[in-house]
Amino acid sequence: MKHILLLGAGRSASVLISYLLRNAAEQNWTLTIGDISVDHLVASLKPHPFAKAIAFDIFDEQQRFSEVAKADLVISLLPAMFHIHVANECLKQGKNMITASYVSPEIKALHAEAEAKGLTFLMECGLDPGIDHMSAMHVIHHIKEKGGFITSFKSYTGGLIAPESDNNPWNYKITWNPRNVVVAGQGTAKYLENGAYKYIPYHRLFASTETFNVLEYGEFEGYANRDSISYREPYGLEKIDTILRGTFRRKGYCEAWNALVQLGLTDDTYKLESSRTMTYAQFTEAYVPASVEGASLAERVAAYLGLSPDSDIMYKLSWLGLFGEEAIGLEDASPAQVIEKLLVNKWNLSPGDKDMIVMQHIFEYEFQGRKKRLTSSMVVLGEDEVHTAMAKTVGLPVGIAAKLILQGVINHKGVVIPTNAEVYGPIMHELVEYGIHFVEEVTSLEVEVH
Amino acid sequence: MKHILLLGAGRSASVLISYLLRNAAEQNWTLTIGDISVDHLVASLKPHPFAKAIAFDIFDEQQRFSEVAKADLVISLLPAMFHIHVANECLKQGKNMITASYVSPEIKALHAEAEAKGLTFLMECGLDPGIDHMSAMHVIHHIKEKGGFITSFKSYTGGLIAPESDNNPWNYKITWNPRNVVVAGQGTAKYLENGAYKYIPYHRLFASTETFNVLEYGEFEGYANRDSISYREPYGLEKIDTILRGTFRRKGYCEAWNALVQLGLTDDTYKLESSRTMTYAQFTEAYVPASVEGASLAERVAAYLGLSPDSDIMYKLSWLGLFGEEAIGLEDASPAQVIEKLLVNKWNLSPGDKDMIVMQHIFEYEFQGRKKRLTSSMVVLGEDEVHTAMAKTVGLPVGIAAKLILQGVINHKGVVIPTNAEVYGPIMHELVEYGIHFVEEVTSLEVEVH
Repeated sequence: MKHILLLGAGRSASVLISYLLRNAAEQNWTLTIGDISVDHLVASLKPHPFAKAIAFDIFDEQQRFSEVAKADLVISLLPAMFHIHVANECLKQGKNMITASYVSPEIKALHAEAEAKGLTFLMECGLDPGIDHMSAMHVIHHIKEKGGFITSFKSYTGGLIAPESDNNPWNYKITWNPRNVVVAGQGTAKYLENGAYKYIPYHRLFASTETFNVLEYGEFEGYANRDSISYREPYGLEKIDTILRGTFRRKGYCEAWNALVQLGLTDDTYKLESSRTMTYAQFTEAYVPASVEGASLAERVAAYLGLSPDSDIMYKLSWLGLFGEEAIGLEDASPAQVIEKLLVNKWNLSPGDKDMIVMQHIFEYEFQGRKKRLTSSMVVLGEDEVHTAMAKTVGLPVGIAAKLILQGVINHKGVVIPTNAEVYGPIMHELVEYGIHFVEEVTSLEVEVH
Repeated sequence: MKHILLLGAGRSASVLISYLLRNAAEQNWTLTIGDISVDHLVASLKPHPFAKAIAFDIFDEQQRFSEVAKADLVISLLPAMFHIHVANECLKQGKNMITASYVSPEIKALHAEAEAKGLTFLMECGLDPGIDHMSAMHVIHHIKEKGGFITSFKSYTGGLIAPESDNNPWNYKITWNPRNVVVAGQGTAKYLENGAYKYIPYHRLFASTETFNVLEYGEFEGYANRDSISYREPYGLEKIDTILRGTFRRKGYCEAWNALVQLGLTDDTYKLESSRTMTYAQFTEAYVPASVEGASLAERVAAYLGLSPDSDIMYKLSWLGLFGEEAIGLEDASPAQVIEKLLVNKWNLSPGDKDMIVMQHIFEYEFQGRKKRLTSSMVVLGEDEVHTAMAKTVGLPVGIAAKLILQGVINHKGVVIPTNAEVYGPIMHELVEYGIHFVEEVTSLEVEVH
């Protein structure tokens, strides 16, 4: 009998919980699910006497101690900043841990001690980070083993909406933290291109996209993520000429989002003067100088941005409600918070809506004197607005890793991420059973290398 | 006999020190000038037995206590963040204080106690803040006394280069902290226009200029400062429709500076990967995507920014050295620090160079049913690269205020700024003797107000 403690029962936990419940009998597991509120789980856990949900407060030291004490493995899907408290408790009590979040400097600092104690702290084991590492490393290892030399690596992921549920002009709905959608890309994007460092400031980011085709799902636009450079070392690509990680959106999204950026509406660093009483139209007006001419606010915005009033971009802005006459009704809001309120209303998943995760890696490499391109693509569709593709691709790798750690199949010690074949191999193998798999295509670039 | 302690003997103190020395005999003053290093003052103070320079460390509590103890008045031209230590000492020992810096929240918090102890802490008594307050309030009080109602107030100041020393394509040289020149305008500009709040994000700021003529000095461009809104209350303009404070540059500066902003070169929030060994051309290249076509880096920059390669803007960028092949030679520099290094080399004052301070207030007001515009303009030229217009306009108001406080003419108590006629009146009166005066022009806007 092994006991699993899952901390964090938010939306992204739905598929993970199903996975754990489904495997519990065969694997001889018991399960405790803890979160601030777990009322929504009570009904679904009833048929499973080996599982229970408890109200859990990460800052309750006594409870943290006693729940971790009972566990053989702790999974944390709590907000990322709380993982360190879980990790410290696991370290103290000699328990293994899994998260789907980036290794923070604080967690990284625990590596030597965790290793010495023979513990596995498996981090970055969800979608992105997670499946991105596994699938990229799978290709990288394969090319290297064959004797190929990788010169370029671009990799994009998008949490999008499935074609059958795609019924708004932005071709986008929100499947994760809406604030992150609004502030996406803020800061400076940094990558390597043809051997040179490149920097894209935020105000140019959404005008600096590349277009890609992914399987039979049509065209996607990719914009660069904040830091692509730091992936060279963990991926063993120190000598690569081009490395860029980015985010996918549907065609047309980025140029319209760029209009919001150009106006200044995504800024989260200051508060508006009167966001409670002002209307959305007044909010938008505040970003258009009085000297800009036009018959309506929309025409003035178009003139200010150098757009046609009839353009798709202007249609998207209008559809969002930027010219609406309702009061915003938010106290002391930043511009970004006003936009978030609009988006949450307009881009919500309706009952039955299916989301879609799209990931694509594009490698260029030299093999036996010839240049080749390998494209590895994954598309995962959600079942409905609860069992989303996002919840699948975050939760299943975590669940599978939990099984493999408890079985002793994964036994790398210390703070580890799934870049090692012994870790990602069996996880990817089982993911295929759930329809999560990559399609690889190799094309010759038809250029002789001398 | 009165004793003055002047803390801070940097460049902007030159004219203030001359003023204090010149008035010392008649006013029966002795003077101590303290700064970390005062070697440069020794020779010039020799003929003045009543004045001495001392090495002074603001963090040496004992010295701070003993020097303030000897003083009747303390002037601080130290970096603004150190004023609070001076102010606390003055409060403890019951001494008056003058600075040319903005009232910080910490200093503001001392108001009641300073007032209760009968002390004058006169802040914002230099150029900007300082002469801007005095000259604006002079007009505001005048219009209000006549029964006029002010509807619009725009006010611009620029620290520039005098026409006779203006020999570079940017028509600009550095007369103050060069870092502040590079990061000028970062954040979001906030102002009020025709009764509505307006916000300009940084990436649009230098493309959002207005052009003004100042006296016989030709055209200047003004861009908005970060916060104009906060001036309504201290200026008694709570019901004004338009209020905008800004910065003057010569025509053509802003559009060229905007090219640096658009590229992302003024960012001070991150460090470059290899700023010591990379050349200026490689630095610039890092901000142009590889996909942009052109025969040279300059042509590619022009193409990326949508400029003609032969444009004035491109000439200014090239003249600065952005396409140069020398190594930058700075360890771990931000983009802004790279630009600062270029500017300090290119925009330095040469021996004999004269700088120029330009200030203009533009008021619109209603008087007896008619709309009028009043323009109040000041231009001050420097003597040379040491006795700059900047040092005059910062130092003389401080020096005059010192005299008036010691004479008991200024006796407002607490933390005060020179917005009150009894404070600014005698200061402005004496400033005229030094050629610092405003020229007012009134024009009718020829519109009947019903």
